[in-house]
Amino acid sequence: MALLMLMATAAQAEDGYELWLRYRAAADLESYRKVLGPVVVEASARGAGVGSQTLSIAAAELNRGLAGLLAGAPSPEAPAVRLRTDPGLPVAPEGYVIRSASVGGRPSTLVVGRTPQGVLYGVFHLLRLVQTGRPVTGLDITASPKVGLRVLNHWDNLDRTVERGYAGPSIFDWHKLPGYVDPRLVDYARANASIGINGAVLNNVNAKADSLTAPYIAKASAVADVLRPYGIRVYLSARFSAPMEIGGLKTADPLDPAVRAFWQAKADEIYRSIPDFGGFLVKANSEGQPGPQDYGRSHADGANMLAQALAPHGGVVMWRAFVYAAERPEDRVKQAFSEFTPLDGRFAPNVIVQVKNGPLDFQPREPFHPLFGAMPKTPLMLEVQLTKEYLGFATHLAYLGPMWEETLQGDTWRRGRGSTVARVVYGSLHGHALTGIAGVANIGADRNSTGSHFDQANWYAFGRLAWDPESSSSEIARQWAAMTFSRDPRFLGPTVDLMMGSRQAVVDYMTPLGLTHLMATGHHYGPGPWVDDLERADWTPFYYHRADPSAVGFDRTGRGSDAVSQYAPQAARRLLADEDHLLWFRRLPWDAPTRSGRTVWAELVARYDRGVAQVVEMRRTWASLAPYVDAERHAQVSAFLEIQQAEAQWWRDACLAYFQSRSGRPLPAGHAPPQQGLDHYRALSFPYAPGHH
Amino acid sequence: MALLMLMATAAQAEDGYELWLRYRAAADLESYRKVLGPVVVEASARGAGVGSQTLSIAAAELNRGLAGLLAGAPSPEAPAVRLRTDPGLPVAPEGYVIRSASVGGRPSTLVVGRTPQGVLYGVFHLLRLVQTGRPVTGLDITASPKVGLRVLNHWDNLDRTVERGYAGPSIFDWHKLPGYVDPRLVDYARANASIGINGAVLNNVNAKADSLTAPYIAKASAVADVLRPYGIRVYLSARFSAPMEIGGLKTADPLDPAVRAFWQAKADEIYRSIPDFGGFLVKANSEGQPGPQDYGRSHADGANMLAQALAPHGGVVMWRAFVYAAERPEDRVKQAFSEFTPLDGRFAPNVIVQVKNGPLDFQPREPFHPLFGAMPKTPLMLEVQLTKEYLGFATHLAYLGPMWEETLQGDTWRRGRGSTVARVVYGSLHGHALTGIAGVANIGADRNSTGSHFDQANWYAFGRLAWDPESSSSEIARQWAAMTFSRDPRFLGPTVDLMMGSRQAVVDYMTPLGLTHLMATGHHYGPGPWVDDLERADWTPFYYHRADPSAVGFDRTGRGSDAVSQYAPQAARRLLADEDHLLWFRRLPWDAPTRSGRTVWAELVARYDRGVAQVVEMRRTWASLAPYVDAERHAQVSAFLEIQQAEAQWWRDACLAYFQSRSGRPLPAGHAPPQQGLDHYRALSFPYAPGHH
Repeated sequence: MALLMLMATAAQAEDGYELWLRYRAAADLESYRKVLGPVVVEASARGAGVGSQTLSIAAAELNRGLAGLLAGAPSPEAPAVRLRTDPGLPVAPEGYVIRSASVGGRPSTLVVGRTPQGVLYGVFHLLRLVQTGRPVTGLDITASPKVGLRVLNHWDNLDRTVERGYAGPSIFDWHKLPGYVDPRLVDYARANASIGINGAVLNNVNAKADSLTAPYIAKASAVADVLRPYGIRVYLSARFSAPMEIGGLKTADPLDPAVRAFWQAKADEIYRSIPDFGGFLVKANSEGQPGPQDYGRSHADGANMLAQALAPHGGVVMWRAFVYAAERPEDRVKQAFSEFTPLDGRFAPNVIVQVKNGPLDFQPREPFHPLFGAMPKTPLMLEVQLTKEYLGFATHLAYLGPMWEETLQGDTWRRGRGSTVARVVYGSLHGHALTGIAGVANIGADRNSTGSHFDQANWYAFGRLAWDPESSSSEIARQWAAMTFSRDPRFLGPTVDLMMGSRQAVVDYMTPLGLTHLMATGHHYGPGPWVDDLERADWTPFYYHRADPSAVGFDRTGRGSDAVSQYAPQAARRLLADEDHLLWFRRLPWDAPTRSGRTVWAELVARYDRGVAQVVEMRRTWASLAPYVDAERHAQVSAFLEIQQAEAQWWRDACLAYFQSRSGRPLPAGHAPPQQGLDHYRALSFPYAPGHH
Repeated sequence: MALLMLMATAAQAEDGYELWLRYRAAADLESYRKVLGPVVVEASARGAGVGSQTLSIAAAELNRGLAGLLAGAPSPEAPAVRLRTDPGLPVAPEGYVIRSASVGGRPSTLVVGRTPQGVLYGVFHLLRLVQTGRPVTGLDITASPKVGLRVLNHWDNLDRTVERGYAGPSIFDWHKLPGYVDPRLVDYARANASIGINGAVLNNVNAKADSLTAPYIAKASAVADVLRPYGIRVYLSARFSAPMEIGGLKTADPLDPAVRAFWQAKADEIYRSIPDFGGFLVKANSEGQPGPQDYGRSHADGANMLAQALAPHGGVVMWRAFVYAAERPEDRVKQAFSEFTPLDGRFAPNVIVQVKNGPLDFQPREPFHPLFGAMPKTPLMLEVQLTKEYLGFATHLAYLGPMWEETLQGDTWRRGRGSTVARVVYGSLHGHALTGIAGVANIGADRNSTGSHFDQANWYAFGRLAWDPESSSSEIARQWAAMTFSRDPRFLGPTVDLMMGSRQAVVDYMTPLGLTHLMATGHHYGPGPWVDDLERADWTPFYYHRADPSAVGFDRTGRGSDAVSQYAPQAARRLLADEDHLLWFRRLPWDAPTRSGRTVWAELVARYDRGVAQVVEMRRTWASLAPYVDAERHAQVSAFLEIQQAEAQWWRDACLAYFQSRSGRPLPAGHAPPQQGLDHYRALSFPYAPGHH
């Protein structure tokens, strides 16, 4: 009843719509009011066109932010905040400088960009300082992004469903576009600009050719018009067989002149509508998608053909390396490496190969992808998944910053120690200028944009890590939590701890000790370790764990598939020594010892229990934080944590019931038996689980 | 750019979320502040249980409303508003009295209900008086609903898609229920209670048996817990074959004892979770749904079997009369009448037969359904469609109040003049106590709930007409517009005119002069008059218009299908004389004269043009109303009207291009030729149009 009354009188007061751009008055606003005065756009910065729009937006955002954070318009007596462009500024084109300085003898805060876009980024940086309670005196900040393409991949379908989406329908309402452009897209653009995201692929990688027809180009153009002044370029996923489906051709062979002419004309047509179009993202010869191999051509042939069409306009091809063949007996996690490394050096200069963080498919934990560092002549783009297809959908709290940091700090050893994935990604390892990071978006039309309040942190962290892959995920969590909820240190400490431990909790209660891909088929909701009879063996959980009475795990050492040989020897050694990857790389008897002294079986049980216990602890922590969070958001997070605890228990119970049926061993003392028998868990079915389109 | 800046600084300020419960300060608030003082819940009204919750909600809503409308808490000196229950009140159980009275020698405003629910309805009435600028002195209002069951039918699927939904995904997030109950459901309940809606069927009539399994009953129960204190009962659509799909039986024969036992047990199970469960809605032997005829039983056999299971708990069966058989050569619009009239008197007392407003399928205009008045021994429930499947989806402005009023005021003549559909529906014509109106909901999770601001009016009008089917749709439009936008008479006059003419505009530019069902196949988006080759003839537009070089229209007179004979003779005469139904009932040569003096062909052209011109006029009117409406909502309506105008033109051009190809006649002078050739319109394809699930 208390909850009802609260809802009846205060519904939707704090619903998360503002994301981290929540400009509530700072506790110590007087000190800020003394330093940050009226916003001035310097004459040198003014002009026409998109740049001028960008500067107007920067000034408006700063005014809006300061009005909220300082609880009113800035004091006219306080030092001005001056926005300026300076083409000679020694930063990247999107970079900026923020400096406390004297202008005409008067103290000022200067936000200077090499371009208007840099000014906008600088404005968000300045606002972030206030939002996180940092000082704004004596500033001398210089910033440039380390990575060039910082791109969201929307797996959004043209019917507004979202593949692996758990946050409502697509924010792109293709049916009403271009006649109606939802103002919400402006807030989407603001949020992206605030964290440095500068590109968006609007449609699913499992693409329809329709998205390349004239009506859909007009729709994409209307979206591009909204995003452009925020520095965000529009990209499209291109279906490789489009020349047949919408071009009237009999082939999509990339070496066929008519096919090449189709793509050239199509690129020209797009650029007439969207002059700053970013380019194509392509999933080819992967999971049933058409591609150049249908014609006996290579991935390089396919990518280069599209690249040639885009090159005159400055566009790029982002060509996905996520390939594995149904008819191929090779260990699935080896196939991308086998396919792509021979092509190193054969891609056109405006092609970047997009590689998932791990060699399988966005699992809670995977070793970094062996392609990183292994294609020195080819720009490689990192692809991570923000939407939690394999980490509990929207209701499980799992902050992914640590996972991405783990990947980025993974050392490939390809040019000696310190040859990290991060350095591959921002190009310093092999000297590439074309660099990028892609994130599969977790964004939908739900009021809070991501389906849960804490999933906003994954959007935020993606942007910040894309800007600087050397960032600390813990520091990012702290910033985000301060901006989104509360700067109170009594809130921030426990919340950052909770976030930082949350992904490991998921690993533990779903797929501990290097197990992987145990999720139920299709929708991936809940456990399905027993599944062993799909049309493709490498879609079954059994393919990955191979549990039988004698042993468990996938032998990827030299005695097995030798996938470990795809890494540099030093990297391989470290991965093999990492118990978090134990059963990923090794097949072991249930009674083999682990580092803890427990057997593999006992360690597995202990880790499942540890995962559940961690969620219990997360709930307890969150309950204690009620004083610092508005009731509405606190209640939703609480409800989701309760769901998460129940589902963690379900995962633990179902997996242990199953693995016990394989191992034939009793549960070690002190560990409760599963609440139900294995048959119960196997019989559960969820035909309406979300995200499976 | 101006729009962009507006959006950047003020996005989502007025997004329609509040619906008509928009408690903005009244212009003459001082006069109200003198009369409406503190809210007092009288001791007699207090108690425990749901009633007490309802009273608390009533008081909270009144406080919230007055705080907004009177710009602050009520003055302690002003006369109290006293909420009271009085079981002896001479009104219906949900009725109420609002009276200006003296209590203990002090002036007061009394809101008295026979039940707490009546108090809540009275509170919304009192708030409405203030919202619409009516006096609140000298009040002496007595109100009871004329209709018992005022029910929304949600065609919402378990995967959160909505069949024929144009307002985003379902508000019922089955996947997260019951663990998470969206606070939005409280606002949905508030809105419904404010207009007297007292029931909601949560799932699609094209039902899945899963909705009757234990997990889904628990989910529905969580929804029922939210709706209950607002006086809203939960119903479920029941799939007739559920005994086979989830009951392990080999048959769903309604006379089979095991089947009967299944349903009895299922009803008992539901009522254990939802003690006030309303009952089942059933679509049987209709468009592929299973039903009693699969076993050679009648609709009465099927309905009565379910009714028996529900009867001990007080539940009802709402059994749809929307049936037509693929294998049946009879004119489709005759079939429901042929099927159901022989069953009159054979239904159990807790069965109500649910009849669409017209005999076809929610078209822009149909004659009233001939079943009304023709089943004197059977309670009949009117079913209307709020979601605009056939009237332009969310982007066309079409206020449906006049259409429903037209149906309700249709005179069946079954007991002489004045035997209106309304009187059938509220039971006075044949003396039924079980009465109801069902509306296919237009509600989704879009921020404004209905996909467009003006579609909120259709939700509002449905509730008001269900409460009192004799209401004036024009007066309802005026109330709604005042509550939703502005009480300024300079706004209200033009807006009510615009609304009142809007449905006829759709009739004119889509299906004028009695034409019907010309929509494209499947999704029903845009024109498809040329379609003549579907698996069922009665799914094709051609079936309905039969245009050839000699004539157009469907002969339903005695020389044709004689559908007109399903009406009482006096009613038939009037319908035949109504030119708005001309080609519905008659097949006429293109050159036959019409009342205007023009030929059928020329009149058709004139009406198509009139429809387009009306939309042009609506746009002009709306543009002139900008001073009275917030920029955000005004902009969305403007954008939608622009889409509507383009689509009205498309409808007009495509239909005239097609009918001209049949009639072989030139366009009359002064009428522009279609902008494109017929082939252009025929080639258009919209595989991703919304609402088709």
